[in-house]
Amino acid sequence: VKAEIVTIGDELLRGEIVDSNKSFLSERLLTLDVETRFHTSVCDDPADMEDALRRAAGRADVVLVSGGLGPTRDDLTTEVLAATFGRKLVQDGPSLEAIRAFFASVGREMAPNNAKQALFPEGAEVLPNPIGTAPGFLLVVGEVPFFSMPGVPRELVRMMDEQVLPRIAARRTGVGVVRARLLRTFGMGESTLDDVLKDIATEDPDVTLGFRTAFPDNYLRPLARAATAAAADAKLDRVCDAIRTRLGALVYGEGDATLELVTGSLLRAQGKTIAVAESCTGGLLAEKITSVAGASDYFLGGVAAYANSAKEALLGVPRELLERHGAVSEPVARAMAEGVRARFGSDLGVSTTGISGPGGGSAEKPVGLVHVALADASGTHADHFVFPLDRSRHRALTAQLALDWVRRRLVGAPLEAPTIMRRRK
Amino acid sequence: VKAEIVTIGDELLRGEIVDSNKSFLSERLLTLDVETRFHTSVCDDPADMEDALRRAAGRADVVLVSGGLGPTRDDLTTEVLAATFGRKLVQDGPSLEAIRAFFASVGREMAPNNAKQALFPEGAEVLPNPIGTAPGFLLVVGEVPFFSMPGVPRELVRMMDEQVLPRIAARRTGVGVVRARLLRTFGMGESTLDDVLKDIATEDPDVTLGFRTAFPDNYLRPLARAATAAAADAKLDRVCDAIRTRLGALVYGEGDATLELVTGSLLRAQGKTIAVAESCTGGLLAEKITSVAGASDYFLGGVAAYANSAKEALLGVPRELLERHGAVSEPVARAMAEGVRARFGSDLGVSTTGISGPGGGSAEKPVGLVHVALADASGTHADHFVFPLDRSRHRALTAQLALDWVRRRLVGAPLEAPTIMRRRK
Repeated sequence: VKAEIVTIGDELLRGEIVDSNKSFLSERLLTLDVETRFHTSVCDDPADMEDALRRAAGRADVVLVSGGLGPTRDDLTTEVLAATFGRKLVQDGPSLEAIRAFFASVGREMAPNNAKQALFPEGAEVLPNPIGTAPGFLLVVGEVPFFSMPGVPRELVRMMDEQVLPRIAARRTGVGVVRARLLRTFGMGESTLDDVLKDIATEDPDVTLGFRTAFPDNYLRPLARAATAAAADAKLDRVCDAIRTRLGALVYGEGDATLELVTGSLLRAQGKTIAVAESCTGGLLAEKITSVAGASDYFLGGVAAYANSAKEALLGVPRELLERHGAVSEPVARAMAEGVRARFGSDLGVSTTGISGPGGGSAEKPVGLVHVALADASGTHADHFVFPLDRSRHRALTAQLALDWVRRRLVGAPLEAPTIMRRRK
Repeated sequence: VKAEIVTIGDELLRGEIVDSNKSFLSERLLTLDVETRFHTSVCDDPADMEDALRRAAGRADVVLVSGGLGPTRDDLTTEVLAATFGRKLVQDGPSLEAIRAFFASVGREMAPNNAKQALFPEGAEVLPNPIGTAPGFLLVVGEVPFFSMPGVPRELVRMMDEQVLPRIAARRTGVGVVRARLLRTFGMGESTLDDVLKDIATEDPDVTLGFRTAFPDNYLRPLARAATAAAADAKLDRVCDAIRTRLGALVYGEGDATLELVTGSLLRAQGKTIAVAESCTGGLLAEKITSVAGASDYFLGGVAAYANSAKEALLGVPRELLERHGAVSEPVARAMAEGVRARFGSDLGVSTTGISGPGGGSAEKPVGLVHVALADASGTHADHFVFPLDRSRHRALTAQLALDWVRRRLVGAPLEAPTIMRRRK
């Protein structure tokens, strides 16, 4: 089954907003095994709209339209859809009442314009919009269903999930469902992952394994097709188990479980606290940890120790170490991790010190060099890497690596150098 | 002049990524007065690609294509463009060398696959890609230029700005040019800005003033059309002067000059140093300041003091203040700013302490409450606000406000409460 998504609005074509509706709709269609073949966007121009709609009717099995359902003169979708496929516009009484009630609920009076939003092409089925004034509708043209939805993302999301997807599923009874999962990994490059997992999910033609880079992470997206959701889930359970067995601690979470969320949950569950000492990451690691609500349960604090004097005064790094080895060195990284742990009285202390660039490098200590250390009751582990990345990505990768060390320590996994990185020998 | 943008890739049609390239390209085209009329996306499928390309050739005056220039079997754009318009593929020696050199620069060997990226349709002009392996190209079909660019956003952005836009401008000599500027403001809501500036840029029909929200900032985008770039620039100078006169210190920068960049430049120019003490922003303010290369010239460091014990031990906040007023209070904000200034020996000390939520609020101290303080040789200024925002936006707005106070102090502007915020009385 092939779908086309048509989004309408001058603001899209002027580039004023990024059109995230299309990716959302495509992803949702895929869960019903409907493949999006075309994304088309046109201005609020009747001729361009009609052309796009006719073309969609000729090449797709299902068409999703978003935008152009508002109350203003620019909003032409309903009118143009009706005209294109030879339907009259008729008013829907219950929709008019619902729009009036919506305005009453927010303490405003309905403007005369809004009555237009209760007009639909003859024969269309109205799709209610409980959180906005623009109802959607389903118009079947020949064999092709056109689902017209508002362009406001939160209204579109709700209408898609509650109204559109069930109707598409119902039209396709017996065809089966597709379910997907997201496994989050850190520490191995995409092509290596592809290679390591190449024999996974090959025996079942209804299971596929997708890859997606979300620097500095890589996501795995297993997708299973089956007659029922339960059967698809069972296939996914099997393939996810196989991936986790193969990758071990490289998989840190599933779905929306970010590394900071997973690590925070581990700290809370184990009743442990953490403090961070940052040089090159400059606050990014602390910011990441505290982006999680409730982080005060386990995060005691951090020091962004940029100046050497701050490393001495706030972290107790001996001046002699700074003078002999320089700020970017293993002895200083160790002293920072141990110092922040002692100053804050935390169970774990983690540190970063490096040269994120673009300036500041030398032959001996190139731009990209970074030392990371993790101190706890068992001692201090330190290592160094060279990441040939721009400043922002260097900082992002370093902070994620340091956080991943914390997670690995908490789950008892080794703090090895992930293959995503070029280790400096 | 009408443009069509064609983006290519299965990942787009599966909804795995949001296609931000289209909005970027449309926005940039608009600066040359080129109106995007169609956005089209298709899978890595030769028939669908050919159909989209032929259609674009028939209805657009300029076509931008992105994606499908990679080294793998799925990357078909060059091949399909050549076949669609009856061109042979020819190898470009300099491009092959450039790709080889690119791999050498990152310490890797070129895979045989990558040689494919040095093939181009006969007659195409190669567009170099200094930060990736996929060069782009310009192929003129009849009267219609097709610009083919890589799909990786940072490579696309650079190629569009450095290679494509100048060529489009050159093809349009004599038609007139459109120039745009971006003025960055912080502290006033979009609708208030619109109201305050409503009489600006009304007398000249060739000047328009656009608004764009980029939370927590608001951008102004004056756009001027004229026969020459110099004439358009002169119009822009006039409108920008008028805006700056009206808004004063609300305008903090122009173009790519972020608040952290502007504030950093002021600190460097005045030979001043800064240190930050963060509670609710948890490292975000330090991270923002240090995201600028060379921040070590003026940033001594920061303390993310989440736990009260950290506020005492690392910032010298008296326990008595914490017990009597609570961590989220003006006396504690003042003590944090003064403490971090003293500990780091910096010229300025700035602090944040608040309740970013979603939990932690009370009747007296609601979620959203935040205290900010700025200490320098002249004394300490403190104020408090309630921002009814989610955790992430609460932190972002607080960090930006604190940084803007630093900038205002350095330029001698008052530290008033911007109207974007609901002040708590």
